[in-house]
Amino acid sequence: MKRIGKQTLEFSTPPTIIGHGAVAGRKEAAGPLAADFHQTFDDTTLNTQSWEKAEAQLQKEAVSVALGNAACSPQDIHMIFAGDLLNQCISSTFGLLDYQIPFLGQYGACSTMAQTLLMAAIMVESGAADRAAAVTSSHFCSAERQFRTPLEYGAQRTPTAQWTATASGCVILGAGGKVKVRHGLAGKATDLGVKDPANMGAAMAPAAADSIFQYLTDTGTSPKDYDGIFTGDLGAVGSSLLLDTLKDNGFDLSGVHNDCGLMLYDREKQDVHAGGSGCGCSAGVLCGHLLGRMERGELRNILFCATGALMSTTSQQQGEAIPGVCHVVHLTT
Amino acid sequence: MKRIGKQTLEFSTPPTIIGHGAVAGRKEAAGPLAADFHQTFDDTTLNTQSWEKAEAQLQKEAVSVALGNAACSPQDIHMIFAGDLLNQCISSTFGLLDYQIPFLGQYGACSTMAQTLLMAAIMVESGAADRAAAVTSSHFCSAERQFRTPLEYGAQRTPTAQWTATASGCVILGAGGKVKVRHGLAGKATDLGVKDPANMGAAMAPAAADSIFQYLTDTGTSPKDYDGIFTGDLGAVGSSLLLDTLKDNGFDLSGVHNDCGLMLYDREKQDVHAGGSGCGCSAGVLCGHLLGRMERGELRNILFCATGALMSTTSQQQGEAIPGVCHVVHLTT
Repeated sequence: MKRIGKQTLEFSTPPTIIGHGAVAGRKEAAGPLAADFHQTFDDTTLNTQSWEKAEAQLQKEAVSVALGNAACSPQDIHMIFAGDLLNQCISSTFGLLDYQIPFLGQYGACSTMAQTLLMAAIMVESGAADRAAAVTSSHFCSAERQFRTPLEYGAQRTPTAQWTATASGCVILGAGGKVKVRHGLAGKATDLGVKDPANMGAAMAPAAADSIFQYLTDTGTSPKDYDGIFTGDLGAVGSSLLLDTLKDNGFDLSGVHNDCGLMLYDREKQDVHAGGSGCGCSAGVLCGHLLGRMERGELRNILFCATGALMSTTSQQQGEAIPGVCHVVHLTT
Repeated sequence: MKRIGKQTLEFSTPPTIIGHGAVAGRKEAAGPLAADFHQTFDDTTLNTQSWEKAEAQLQKEAVSVALGNAACSPQDIHMIFAGDLLNQCISSTFGLLDYQIPFLGQYGACSTMAQTLLMAAIMVESGAADRAAAVTSSHFCSAERQFRTPLEYGAQRTPTAQWTATASGCVILGAGGKVKVRHGLAGKATDLGVKDPANMGAAMAPAAADSIFQYLTDTGTSPKDYDGIFTGDLGAVGSSLLLDTLKDNGFDLSGVHNDCGLMLYDREKQDVHAGGSGCGCSAGVLCGHLLGRMERGELRNILFCATGALMSTTSQQQGEAIPGVCHVVHLTT
C-alpha cells in the first residue's frame, strides 16, 4: 500500500470482493433496481417487533447473503466493519451479534458503505485480516422516527427532502474475487454552513466535490477515465451542486456521474422528492446493482463515492450547521 | 503485520506513540490522577453554550495538546480516528472539524480509545498513513442528559452505577516515539443477557474476559508477563466479575489488573459509586497517567483493554440486553 498525492491510497496487491449481498424493502423492490437485490421483503417489519429490530435484521440478512456468496462461514471473517444511522449504531450491534466476528463499529452516516469498504480493504491488504466484511443499513421507519417525526404524524416533506432507503448491503473482501479495490481516499469533514436538515444533498455536495477533486488530482486521472462515478446520496439537489462545483474546478462529470439516490427509485412515480438517502441506499445500490453490473462485465472501472451528513437532532436543535463527508473507493474488474 | 492465534495481530515494525494529550474537568482534577492531565477545566462548560459543545471542545483541546507534544501540525496527520457516546458522534464531528484531517468516525462506546488506537496503529504499520491520530471523549453532563435524566431532575444513582468522566484523550502514532504498539486484538460483541443500564460493569465484564483470555492464549503469555493489565471501565462490580471469570479459566490477574474506572477518582471521597466510565475515562487515564508512567520508565509493558457497552436508550426501552465489547492493545517501551 502506498500513498499518492495528498490523500489517496493505492493498493499494491488489490484486495478483491469475494462476496456481496444486498437486501431491501417493498418500496425499493418496486423501483428500477429491484432485480439486482438478492432478497426483498414485502413486510418491512421483517417479522420483528420494532422498526429498529427490523433494521438490525436487514443487516443480518445482507451478511448472510454475502457469506453464502463468498462460500464462507462467519469464523472465516477476521473483522467486520459496520455502522448505521441509529443512535449508538444499534442496528449493527444487534444485527451482527450472532455472527461473533470481531466487531469494529463505524460512524460515517450515509458514507458508511464507502468507509467500511475502505477499512476492510486496508485490513486485507495489510494482512490484519485474511477476509474482512463491510456492512451498513438504513430503514425508512426507524430513521423517520429518530431524526424527523414518527410516521403517524403524517408530516409533510419539502421538495429537497430525500427518502431514507429500507435496505442493507454487505461486501466481503479477500483474495481471488473478480472485482478489485484499487485505490481509496478517506475524506475530510466539510462544512459550508448548510443548516437545513431537509436538504442533506446540499450539505453533502461540498464534501463530495472536495474528495472527488482531490482523488482525481492525486491520481492524475480525469472523469472520462471511468465507466461511472457514483455518489451516494446527493439526490437531485446535491448532484446538481456537485457537477457545477467540479466543473468550476476543471472537472466535467456530465455523462459519467450518477447518484445512488437518483438510481434507487423512479422519481416520477415513487414520490421520493429529491431522491433516496440513508446508509442503505448507496450500500444497496453498490452491493446489488453496481457489483452485479461489474460481474456481468457491463462496468469495468468505477468510483464509488458515498457521502454522509454528520449531524444529530441535538446538533441541529443547537443551531450547528451540517458538515458532510465523502469517502472514495476505486473498483475495477 | 501478521496474525497470531485466533484473533491477535502482531506488528512487525511497531508503530510508536509520538504525541499524546489528556484533558479533563473539575471532578477529575480533584482525583488522584490530577497531575497527569495536560490541562484541566474548572469550568466544565469550557465557555461554550451547551454540554455537547463543551464535550466537542474537550476533543479539540486534547488533539491540540497531542499535536504540540508530537511537534506536528494538523496537515502532518493523514487520518484521524474518533468517536464518542453522543448520538451520531457529534463531539467528534464538531470538535475536530477545524483540523481538516481525513476523518474516520468510530463507534465503540467506552472501548473507543482502544479501537481508535488499534486502527491508527494498523494505518501506520501498513503505510496507509505516515502519522495517524486516535481520540475520544465523554462529558458527564452530556451523557447524563442523553442516556439517563437531565441533571436538574436530581435522579438517585444505584450503588452499581458508574460516573461518566468529563475528559478526552488523544494519541498520535508515527515513527520514532518511545512507546511502541506491539500487538492488538479486535474484540467480539459479547452478550450474556445483562439488561441493567445502571450496571454497565457487569454487562462489559464478559467481553473483557473473552478478549483478554483470547489475547493471552494467542500470544502464549501469562498475566505476570505484564507490568499492568488495565481495563476501562468495568468499575468495582465488573472488575470483580472479570477477575473471577478469568481465574476460573486459568488466568490469575490479581496484583496485575487495575481498571481505569477505579483509578480516575477517589471512590472513598468522590461519591462515584462503582467507579468512573465513559469514553473519556479510559482515554484520559491512558493518555495522561499510563503513558506518562511509561515515559518516566515506571511501566514498560502493559495491556490496555478498553471496554464498551453497545446500547442505546431505544434498545434499552425495547427490552434488548446490553452487549459488551473489549479491544486490547499491547504497549511497551
